[in-house]
This record gives sequence, structure tokens and C-alpha cells, in this order.
Amino acid sequence: MMAVPSTRTPQVAMVGGGQLARMTHQAAIALGQSLRVLATSADEPAAQVTPDVVIGSHTDLEDLRRVAAGADVLTFDHEHVPTELLDKLVAEGVNVAPPPQALVYAQDKLVMRHRLESLGAAVPRYLGLDSLDRLDAVDAFAGRVDAPLVVKAARGGYDGRGVQLARDLADAREITRAYLADGVPVVLEEKVELRRELAALVARSPFGQGAAWPVVETVQADGICVQVIAPAPELSEAKAAAAQGLALRLAAELGVVGVLAVELFETTDGALLVNELAMRPHNSGHWTMDGSRTSQFEQHLRAVLDYPLGDTDAIAPVTVMANVLGAAQPPEMAVDERLHHLYARMPDARVHLYGKTERPGRKVGHINFVGDDAADLPKLRERAELAAHWLSYGQWADGWDPHG
Amino acid sequence: MMAVPSTRTPQVAMVGGGQLARMTHQAAIALGQSLRVLATSADEPAAQVTPDVVIGSHTDLEDLRRVAAGADVLTFDHEHVPTELLDKLVAEGVNVAPPPQALVYAQDKLVMRHRLESLGAAVPRYLGLDSLDRLDAVDAFAGRVDAPLVVKAARGGYDGRGVQLARDLADAREITRAYLADGVPVVLEEKVELRRELAALVARSPFGQGAAWPVVETVQADGICVQVIAPAPELSEAKAAAAQGLALRLAAELGVVGVLAVELFETTDGALLVNELAMRPHNSGHWTMDGSRTSQFEQHLRAVLDYPLGDTDAIAPVTVMANVLGAAQPPEMAVDERLHHLYARMPDARVHLYGKTERPGRKVGHINFVGDDAADLPKLRERAELAAHWLSYGQWADGWDPHG
Repeated sequence: MMAVPSTRTPQVAMVGGGQLARMTHQAAIALGQSLRVLATSADEPAAQVTPDVVIGSHTDLEDLRRVAAGADVLTFDHEHVPTELLDKLVAEGVNVAPPPQALVYAQDKLVMRHRLESLGAAVPRYLGLDSLDRLDAVDAFAGRVDAPLVVKAARGGYDGRGVQLARDLADAREITRAYLADGVPVVLEEKVELRRELAALVARSPFGQGAAWPVVETVQADGICVQVIAPAPELSEAKAAAAQGLALRLAAELGVVGVLAVELFETTDGALLVNELAMRPHNSGHWTMDGSRTSQFEQHLRAVLDYPLGDTDAIAPVTVMANVLGAAQPPEMAVDERLHHLYARMPDARVHLYGKTERPGRKVGHINFVGDDAADLPKLRERAELAAHWLSYGQWADGWDPHG
Repeated sequence: MMAVPSTRTPQVAMVGGGQLARMTHQAAIALGQSLRVLATSADEPAAQVTPDVVIGSHTDLEDLRRVAAGADVLTFDHEHVPTELLDKLVAEGVNVAPPPQALVYAQDKLVMRHRLESLGAAVPRYLGLDSLDRLDAVDAFAGRVDAPLVVKAARGGYDGRGVQLARDLADAREITRAYLADGVPVVLEEKVELRRELAALVARSPFGQGAAWPVVETVQADGICVQVIAPAPELSEAKAAAAQGLALRLAAELGVVGVLAVELFETTDGALLVNELAMRPHNSGHWTMDGSRTSQFEQHLRAVLDYPLGDTDAIAPVTVMANVLGAAQPPEMAVDERLHHLYARMPDARVHLYGKTERPGRKVGHINFVGDDAADLPKLRERAELAAHWLSYGQWADGWDPHG
């Protein structure tokens, strides 16, 4: 333990001022702390709600030094800090969690795929390319996998950006060429025959303690997660345990400190393949704020501070999380009034708003519904979808009219 | 509804920068808001964690105006703002919740007792005195009630301060005389034969909606609440409904806006008598942060903003809350290290720290334990007591030694 005055609690600094930092600050308050954030502007979600804000860039070493100064640990609300800057901070004595040698596997899909293969974790068949010289390999790979191809930028994507389903081989070649010409390495992948997507969320402390939440199902639309069901319905205990075990093993093998989200494909023939890794609180864990004993935000703080981890049990048989996405055309009705009507119709809705300006497709909040009976799942999902759509569009998709 | 730009969420201002404001800020974050607080210094619990802090005094009209400026509503984390100042703010157009004409019943025990009697609510037998001229009435009252006497300052007390059990009649007369000589009105009360203390917590919106949480048992030591059990064990449904109904009725009759806590005596013969009122989030409702669908802090915000109120159901059969009080001699072990050990022993402990310097008897945090089975109550209470004592003293009262 650090030598601290009796009443001092630790100082955590987080790079990034988005909603993940905002919700981490909520959790920090309960632990007697106040999160320090590096935000690009004072109106970012976390900067609105915490007094300890450093305005700067996550690609500027001086800004990173400023936010880390005097903090017990430096952590992240996104994966985009260049590891060479983090290496310098580590050399200067900054406690970086997750450390850069782990974080790189969440930054670069190609590095991640290679490492996962070497660890014996199942992944979709893929081809990594980092130079235009080898563009011919696309044809050979396509012939080998005999499936539609997904082309992914190895770095920089999120929420479906940087991921494209190729129309045909010529299209795959063209997308790949364009990325490589921009100096962006590419991962080509077979389009897997999916039953659904799952996520295994765990946390790991420097001491080596690991803790896994129940495995969830993530429902996507246009590459963006729209709903999460916890626990994943009709998932066998054996398969759930396998997914949790895999995530805990990866956290240990990769040296993760903090929360690790392992996004998984469940194929039509029942296999689990690793799709993506995230080393921070993750959208697939937002249900834990209302549905688990310990939220992912508190757990992330506990992990990076090397506190013993909290109980990850679900508090109810089923929790459904729905993301609130900015509408293509934000409604005239103020968000305040939309919230008013939502609460009138659904007093059990657990709303979390991020303080963001509404833009089409942007995640501006989420809503949790906690159910007392797993059999209520279809109804809960329907209500979660109605609630999220209402907050986005100011329209009840089922035509409900309280005055009608 | 107010005319607000589409993405603007309401601004709530709270007088007082203590732990109640701190935890209200946590709840405000989820609603897309950031609480503004009037704090006496920058190191108060709420001022540590929210960026929008006005430093000033709750007895200074200018300071109150500053914190209220531009806010949608002004509310409180304590009852100590003089109502004449609030009347001025109301006259200037400030939306004060609860309004001063309600708040006075939480400020002055004598005014409260009179009003409750007129509303037919059962209270302990009492004598109100506001002048030394009537000191003889103490003797007559003592003769009438034939019980030990409790002498209470009508204004300004909290956590047992301003409340004294008189040793005998002469002592009662002397305590009363001292208060009156200082210009403080006095309530003399029979010491009721208690079975236990209960609290009925409700919220009420300006629209008139009311919502009641399950009635809880509050366990006191030296006049300070040390534990809360939700719901109160072995309380008949009829009696629980009566307590909830009484609290909802008082909230409506007194014109309360926000949370109202009704502290109750359950006498040995089974009657419920009203002891105290608080018109703000209250210690007896801290269990709701982890044990109810809607926490009292979110509900208070929803009520003062006239949002529809949230679901007040308990999420589990039993929740135990224990206050963490500053030790007579704070331990050498840092609070950070104490927390570390607590989490190691009890991964299900839900800790809430207030960022306060430890002083003897001062509430510096609380811990919730949520149980899946009402039969676990004795064990939960024992664990809650051990946990709170550990955080206060750095000693396991059961002699537990992880290295032993």
C-alpha cells in the first residue's frame, strides 16, 4: 500500500472525457474519490460533472504528463493513446493501467489476432496485410475461405466504423487497397455464420485477481450495439463458463489491468470465436450499473487501484440494456420533456444520460430494465426498445398516446 | 414544462455541500445533469466532486441568490436556511422545493408538533415552551405524564444534539431554563416506552404524486443512527401500510416537495408516534442506493423537478445499512488500506465514503449489504456491524486475522 495520510483516498486519472469517464466518476464518488480526466473540451460528458479536468489531447505527451501528475494510476476511457507515449510515461514512473504492452492488443486488430492465435483462442479465419505489395493475397484468401469477406482497418475503428462487408472480391480488394494506401494495416476476415454475438466481461487486478460477470448477449444494428441481455438467454452453463474462462485467461496472459471486454461470435454451429477486445469499461457492461452487485465502473477503479474486486453476481434473473442513439433528425421536444413522459409511462426505467449533443447514431445515453422473472424477457426487451426509441425520436413506436 | 433547448437538462441547485449533496450529484449525473451546490468551503463532501460550486453561507441572502441564479429549482441538503430568506427568494421568483411554508415543519419541532396534532397524527405527549415566564409548567407537565422527560431544543439540533434525557425534574427544569435563557424554544416530551424506531420515507412532487419506500427500522446508539434494516422486520403489513399512508398524507398536507422522512417511535404497546420530520434525502434512506429500484437521491431530484417518480420497490428481500462513524481515536492505518482489507473480506459490501476528515462520532460513510434471503438478516446485521467498525477503527471486532 502507498503511504498516505489517514483520510486520503487514491487519485485516479483517466484519459478521455466521454461517457465512460463520466460514469467512472459516479463510481469514484462512492469510493471517497473524485476522478481526474483528460478531456479535449470542457463540454465533454465527464468534464461537465467532475471538477478535476485537464483540457488537452491524448496524443500529446505533455498533456498526458499533466493529467498523470500526482495520480496513483493513469487509466483510459478509450484505446487511442499511442503506446510509445505510454512507454515514456511508464519509464518516468507513471503507473499505467492497463499497461501499454497489454493495451496494444485492444488497439491493433492484427496484433490482437496474431496473439490470440498463438494463445490457442479461436478467432475467425483472417488475413493480415500491412503493405500494398501483398495485395494478391486477398484473392488467395478469398478462394480459401469461400465466404463473404469483412475488411477491417486494424487500428482506429469504433462502433462499426472501419469495418466493411465487401460486396464481392473486387470490392474487398479495393477497400483493402485504399486502407493500405493510407498506411493503415488491414485485417480481412471471413464473414462468420452467426447465431448471435456475446460478450464476456471480466476485471483483473495487478495482484492477479480476476472476476467475471455473467456472459451477455449483445444485439447489433448497423454495426452499433443497440441492446444487451444479461445473462445471455439459452446459453448453456458449460458454454458460459468456457467464455468466462477464456476471458479470464486472456486477461491474465495479456497482462490486462482493469476491465476487459471480450466480444464473441457464437456461430451457427455453436463455436465461440473472439471478435474484439476492449480494455476499459464497455458498452456490454452498462447493465451492471443496475443489474449487478458491482458495476463495471467501480470494478475498473478497484482493479486499477489493486483493491480486491467486488461481487459480480447479477441482482436479478434478467437485465436488459438499451442504448439511446441520436435520431437522424432530433425531435423538437426537449430531452427533458421526453424524459418526463418516459418516467410517466415506465417508472422502473433506469435512465443514464451522458450530457451529449444529439447527433445521428451517436450514443447519448442508455436505459436499464431489471426483471424479477427470466420469463419476462420478451416483454422487457420490447419495453427497452420502446423506451430507447422514445428518448431518441420522441415517438412511441407502438402508437401509445396517453391523451388518446 | 420549461421551454429549453432540445439537449438541455434541468439545473438543480442545492443548499449545503455535505454528503447528501454529494450523493445527489451522483444521481444527477445519470439524469444528464450536474448539481450546483452552495458549500461553506471547497473541501466539503459535495464540493470535492462537482464542478459547479458556490462558496458561501446558507444564512446569507446574497449567497442564496447566487446559487439559485438561473437554476430551475433550489433545494436543500439540510434544514437550516432561515425561512424569511427563502420567502424573499420565492418573492423574487425562485422555485424553492420544499417551499418555506413546508420546510418550517422540519426546522422547528414545536411548530411541527402543533401542526401534527392538528392533523390528528399521533405524537408523544409534549409541552412547548418559548418563554421563561412559563417555566412552572414543567412541573405540571411532569406530574401529568409521570414518565422520564426528554428536553429538546425546538430548533438547530441534529444527530442527537439538542436532545437530552433529564435525570429528574430539577434537571429538566434546569435544561429548559438554559435553552429559554438563550432564546431557544423548548419541547419537553415524555420518554416513550419504545419497542424500536422506524422511518417512513416518501417523496412528493409539485404535481401531487407521492411514492413510498418500504418502512425501515432504524437502530440508534447515543442518539445517532448506526444501522437501518429495510424492510423493518416483523412489521405487519397493516402497520407498514399505516406508516406509509401517514407519511404520504403528511407530505400532502404540509405541501412537501421532494423527499420526506418521517421518523417514528413504535411503542411497546404497538402504537406509532411521529418523532421527527426531515424534508430532504435522509440517513434512513441510504439503503435505497443499493437496495431499491430508485435511490432517494434520484427520487429527490425527480420530485423537485416535477418528473414522475420512480419505482420504490426493494430489489431484494432485505438490505442492511450501517453508518461509518469517525473513531474516538482514528486508526493509524489509512482509510485506503482499511477499504482494501474490507473488500478482501467482504466482496459484497457496498461502500459509500463521503470524503470527510475523520472526527469522533462524525458520519464519514456508510455501507450497504443486500441479502437474497430475509432469513439471513442476523448474519447481514453482524457483517454490517463488523464492516462499519472495521472502517472506523481498523479493528475486526470478532478478532478475525487474515494472517493469523
